Amino acid sequence: MAIDLHCHIFPPEYLRMARTRGAEIGAQIYRRADGREFIRAPGDFDYPLTEELWSVPALLEALARRRLAGAALSVAPPTLSYGAEPGLAADLCAASNDSIAEIVRACPDRFVGLATVPLQDVPRAIRELERAMARPEFRGVMIASHVGPKNLDHPDLLPFFEACQELDACVFIHPYEVLGSERLQSYYLWNLIGMVTETCVAIESLIFGGVYERLPRLKTYFAHGGGSFPWLRGRAEHGFRVLRNTRFAVSRPPSAFLDRIYVDCMVYSPSALAWLVSELGSDHIVVGSDYPFDIGPEDPTAIVSTAPGLSRQDRENILFRTAWRLLGIKVGADAVRATVSEPDPGPGR
Amino acid sequence: MAIDLHCHIFPPEYLRMARTRGAEIGAQIYRRADGREFIRAPGDFDYPLTEELWSVPALLEALARRRLAGAALSVAPPTLSYGAEPGLAADLCAASNDSIAEIVRACPDRFVGLATVPLQDVPRAIRELERAMARPEFRGVMIASHVGPKNLDHPDLLPFFEACQELDACVFIHPYEVLGSERLQSYYLWNLIGMVTETCVAIESLIFGGVYERLPRLKTYFAHGGGSFPWLRGRAEHGFRVLRNTRFAVSRPPSAFLDRIYVDCMVYSPSALAWLVSELGSDHIVVGSDYPFDIGPEDPTAIVSTAPGLSRQDRENILFRTAWRLLGIKVGADAVRATVSEPDPGPGR
Repeated sequence: MAIDLHCHIFPPEYLRMARTRGAEIGAQIYRRADGREFIRAPGDFDYPLTEELWSVPALLEALARRRLAGAALSVAPPTLSYGAEPGLAADLCAASNDSIAEIVRACPDRFVGLATVPLQDVPRAIRELERAMARPEFRGVMIASHVGPKNLDHPDLLPFFEACQELDACVFIHPYEVLGSERLQSYYLWNLIGMVTETCVAIESLIFGGVYERLPRLKTYFAHGGGSFPWLRGRAEHGFRVLRNTRFAVSRPPSAFLDRIYVDCMVYSPSALAWLVSELGSDHIVVGSDYPFDIGPEDPTAIVSTAPGLSRQDRENILFRTAWRLLGIKVGADAVRATVSEPDPGPGR
Repeated sequence: MAIDLHCHIFPPEYLRMARTRGAEIGAQIYRRADGREFIRAPGDFDYPLTEELWSVPALLEALARRRLAGAALSVAPPTLSYGAEPGLAADLCAASNDSIAEIVRACPDRFVGLATVPLQDVPRAIRELERAMARPEFRGVMIASHVGPKNLDHPDLLPFFEACQELDACVFIHPYEVLGSERLQSYYLWNLIGMVTETCVAIESLIFGGVYERLPRLKTYFAHGGGSFPWLRGRAEHGFRVLRNTRFAVSRPPSAFLDRIYVDCMVYSPSALAWLVSELGSDHIVVGSDYPFDIGPEDPTAIVSTAPGLSRQDRENILFRTAWRLLGIKVGADAVRATVSEPDPGPGR
């Protein structure tokens, strides 16, 4: 039994607003000739609008089918609406968060919420974050890997990260509207390569831009195994050391901030996960399913069993302990406890 | 002693043309206030024009300093001029190749040439490739990871790859003018992340676009450890298997073409190199130095010594055997032989 920290929903209140104000938010709900409803949203997203996107029974069924004890719910990235008018985006986020809270309240043993915020307008984003974090249903926030042309080290965004640290909101950083997409149109490369590159840009921006250095208690975790970052860290390390004409906004090398990087285990290769554990430590890795999208693994915890050389402690860290420590709440503990014989050794590396 | 398969020069004939026709090719040679000459070339490139870029004594001195027995010489990517008028680009490539041949002739025990071609005009590129491969100084060609908006699977480029296979020209594929550069302006990210992402796009385009499948004898190798591709192969594999709405132009999964991917060892992390060996095999890995650029490692073979768990056979494969097999010529064999006690076991995995 595991806790899924990468599980997306389309909040019913978002869908309701997409039906009435779709043109303004860039989303469109329409019916195809075969009668099925679809949602078209920013980023060439076009997806069948089925119950699995939003209903509590479908979510619970998916958890059970995937042997998951619980999940942190975040919005599907196409709903982020960072390009919408800020006031409308704030309303949309508030509505989405109300929906997430309602789902969590229906099953507080299984779900915890990650809020969504209008990051194109930082004061509004902070207000919505405060509103969400004041509710027992939320433990953090999901944001994208960039806000239009601004990478996550942009000075405009620093007050938002300060608020996250202040409120102890765990920040799930997810790729979105990928860079270089004009070159990634074939073979789903915008996703297979673009998404994981976005995450690498996000992590290196937070490191080199000094965000981690300024905010020592900011908690972040990243989708898809941290994207290409773990693999490219050596190059970042070398660059920091040798590039004399490059201005970095941080005093220490990337390795000094590795401890701040938490990632999910969605790397699709048991040997890659084993290497990831050797680089970041199993106490920095959680389960992610990418529910409900087709790029997600059919069985999100299978890789934790098949990765070579992991100890039982490593596996339990990845399956639930790291997630509990990140969120500060033992969601799904009843179901996990039924399958674990040993007492919980508590947090720590 | 090792053979360096990633060693760039600025051919003297290119520099001569940059002085006379710089405006047309987008390059500019100028003198700064302190008297030093610089070359400014496409891709925000601005570099001191010192002897190390082109002179035989400087190249030999660099080999000796880095304990390298030999090198395959390719042009520095900023000289590629794929954006120039095709006739001029063809003249420029012919001039560059004449320079490379001259350097190789000066030290045939140490150097072998990789030609440059005007890939924006495939018939001209094939003619220049044929001209180069007819000369004893050349064993292959260096090309970029894309030609303007065309990825390497573009149908226009297929005749060029057919010619490479026909002529047994080893193709060194190097990143260039990286995708998404507008988001990669800070902290040298265009290089630290962009270059390695380019290479991943090149490899997945050749795989998913069916180029490897159509051309079973095409020999390719890639800079910087194959970029982010080795790390992301699991995702590519999974995508090929599950994405029902994506059209791939190949019948077999990425793993079926892994044997076609040769890479240099420039991954800047001993544990990453060890994992790379476990994924691709040491008989698919060569030494690369990125000479003369500052992002290159000071000691390009140090990582081969420090990577954990490699056998003597693995190390010798990476240091020289894989390079000899790829090039079909034992450049630097005299210097290597002086340091190796065992007889050469020949090619094979």
